[in-house]
Amino acid sequence: MLLLSLARAAPLVRAASTTATLAAALKMGDALRSHRRRFTEEDVAAYAGVSGDRNPVHLDDAFARGTGGFQRGRVVHGMLVASLFPALIASHFPGAVYASQSLKFAAPVHVGDEVVAQVQALHIKATGARHIVKFATKCFMDDEETLAIDGEAMAFLPTLQLSAEAIK
Amino acid sequence: MLLLSLARAAPLVRAASTTATLAAALKMGDALRSHRRRFTEEDVAAYAGVSGDRNPVHLDDAFARGTGGFQRGRVVHGMLVASLFPALIASHFPGAVYASQSLKFAAPVHVGDEVVAQVQALHIKATGARHIVKFATKCFMDDEETLAIDGEAMAFLPTLQLSAEAIK
Repeated sequence: MLLLSLARAAPLVRAASTTATLAAALKMGDALRSHRRRFTEEDVAAYAGVSGDRNPVHLDDAFARGTGGFQRGRVVHGMLVASLFPALIASHFPGAVYASQSLKFAAPVHVGDEVVAQVQALHIKATGARHIVKFATKCFMDDEETLAIDGEAMAFLPTLQLSAEAIK
Repeated sequence: MLLLSLARAAPLVRAASTTATLAAALKMGDALRSHRRRFTEEDVAAYAGVSGDRNPVHLDDAFARGTGGFQRGRVVHGMLVASLFPALIASHFPGAVYASQSLKFAAPVHVGDEVVAQVQALHIKATGARHIVKFATKCFMDDEETLAIDGEAMAFLPTLQLSAEAIK
């Protein structure tokens, strides 16, 4: 695998490439990775506010350890961690529109844990002026091996060209 | 269908019931509904901040109308609208832990639109001290018919009893 450092966030991993040329357009098999992200107590509180999800497993360490069964205490809302996928796609393809997302929450992400999101193009199809792309969407714990979230997403992209912002 | 008004948010719709007794424990077929929710410009900005998803289809009316193809302008992040499902489940079952969620984004929700979320128990199974419940998860536009999001969720519930907070 060849890893190319891109601008703000996301290295592009071109699984099947042996050359160092920067891929300007998304191809099947390409994987985009986010920077490492650590969700803070403040992030979780802000998300609880805007989503209305005040489940105490996210806000109360004692409750999370007891009823929740999370020995390390409070966990980040799974849907907040999952927001990394559309954020990552949109950072490369502004104007992307989500059609679907499946999510399997495989391991809890605790407040303060670092994670990395990855989306990999599984299928690309032109549809009118846009493309619809099926992505494998994975979020890894900071060992970059343990899966926190696994799933797939379908998104309409206005173009397959990686945005200038993402590659400059 | 019998609709029982509950406390903060959620009426409980007992599809197969003909009596007016309040259901204290979740049964197959039971549906829980949220209050109507309107996502404001401030909500979308707050969510963009915490998720990092600054896709201009959510933040820029002109871009949303042009590249995004949304004639009514900015749309709410789909994953923010989808956060209503775990929020609704947790409001009735504090300590609920999400196992999976599938989401099909069927119609765009624009900033200022009102929506209602509904989760309906499709399958309930005891597992150790907890129950795992499969829910149909639907989010309706303010006509209460048009689907904005369709999908399913699996969640571990610490108990099937509706919380005192939800039913008092």
